[in-house]
Amino acid sequence: MDIVLKENERIDDLEFKDLKIIQNKDGFCFGIDSILLTGYAKNIKANSSVIDLGTGTGIIPILLSGKTNTTNFVGVEVQAEVADMAKRSVKLNNLEDRIDILNSNILDLNKKYKKASFDVVTTNPPYKKLNTGITNINDKKLISRHEITASLEQFIEMASFLLKDFGEFYMVHRPDRLVDIFSIMRQKNIEPKKIKFVYPNENKKTNLILIKGIKNGNPFLEYDNNLYVYDNQGNYTKDILKIYNKI
Amino acid sequence: MDIVLKENERIDDLEFKDLKIIQNKDGFCFGIDSILLTGYAKNIKANSSVIDLGTGTGIIPILLSGKTNTTNFVGVEVQAEVADMAKRSVKLNNLEDRIDILNSNILDLNKKYKKASFDVVTTNPPYKKLNTGITNINDKKLISRHEITASLEQFIEMASFLLKDFGEFYMVHRPDRLVDIFSIMRQKNIEPKKIKFVYPNENKKTNLILIKGIKNGNPFLEYDNNLYVYDNQGNYTKDILKIYNKI
Repeated sequence: MDIVLKENERIDDLEFKDLKIIQNKDGFCFGIDSILLTGYAKNIKANSSVIDLGTGTGIIPILLSGKTNTTNFVGVEVQAEVADMAKRSVKLNNLEDRIDILNSNILDLNKKYKKASFDVVTTNPPYKKLNTGITNINDKKLISRHEITASLEQFIEMASFLLKDFGEFYMVHRPDRLVDIFSIMRQKNIEPKKIKFVYPNENKKTNLILIKGIKNGNPFLEYDNNLYVYDNQGNYTKDILKIYNKI
Repeated sequence: MDIVLKENERIDDLEFKDLKIIQNKDGFCFGIDSILLTGYAKNIKANSSVIDLGTGTGIIPILLSGKTNTTNFVGVEVQAEVADMAKRSVKLNNLEDRIDILNSNILDLNKKYKKASFDVVTTNPPYKKLNTGITNINDKKLISRHEITASLEQFIEMASFLLKDFGEFYMVHRPDRLVDIFSIMRQKNIEPKKIKFVYPNENKKTNLILIKGIKNGNPFLEYDNNLYVYDNQGNYTKDILKIYNKI
């Protein structure tokens, strides 16, 4: 297969079903948050249409293609170079028939898709509010981490537009934004139904949250078991090893 | 001291600074939730004015009178008989100069107090939404447990009315209502600033939450350490023993 690697790019082995991904050594590389989100969303139905908002290198649809039988993924990425990398990763994995990568700002998706076009939305959006600490707005890492091209509210609003009635919304985010998240989700008619708190270990504070919402769902929030990444000996916990497909 | 006990009432020892409380054997007796809330709110300043919305038997101001040097408590209770019990408990503890018990629906407090009259609001409101499972609307336990005389939104709205700018709001509630709580608090300008999840033990799901909000505070949510009530041997944890003043 002819996959062209550009300067500073490398192919990383996802160590799962022979899946691979192209990443830029100087860019934003995927983290545990995306992996955890695919673990959280892995029970989506095979015939679902799934759209990943802010897909970056395509890590979420690529991993979900291995964890599910779903055949209809779209990954949307605003940065042209990053979207191009994701497209080449899709090709590298022979997933062109299951995953479409779309280079677009998520704010424009209502021009491309009709309301209620998808069964499932996944997203690992930028975590940080736009603030004055940013000096170079063109930095690719900044766009991945800060709400520069779209805010949390805009991500959730577009998810709500795209989702069918009772469609599923899966998001990973930071615990300190939970009030924003719950308030906005309810405002935009995606009711938070499940939450999972992720902790580095039992002695530290939660530093990630996984959330499942249902478009027009009834209010009632369930708590998944807390997830600890490391045990007291500093090794990955069994829960993490399962998500990483090691046991 | 002449404290008259009515039928089915008894005096319970709070096992803390010789404090006592009158409870009705057939009524709603205070639970661990109220105790935990007083542990959570114990750092309020001595010169604060504090109002407890839905005070029941007065457990929260009575315990807080022992845990703080605050001298200006008001406890508001809608049920006349229960408010009367609370008044007698205040007298029994010689706390008439520190605690006022007011027999009123919280919805009427804006007639009695001006906006921004209090530094601190505490509340252990009814947890359950009004629903069709209720057969006897006059049952005292039901009024304590269900949103019959005031809804969660009305409790928070009145708290916001009563609080000064940057005044503190302390509430204990159920985790399954967290979306309601966060959405309503933000709507009513009491920003959730801290949350503490309480678990029966390490293997069970959280069943109580303690929340601190600040009137007109800036958005940023912190997580207190989780509180486990029992350890794996079925004994109270050290954290609980401290709150119960046993160690």
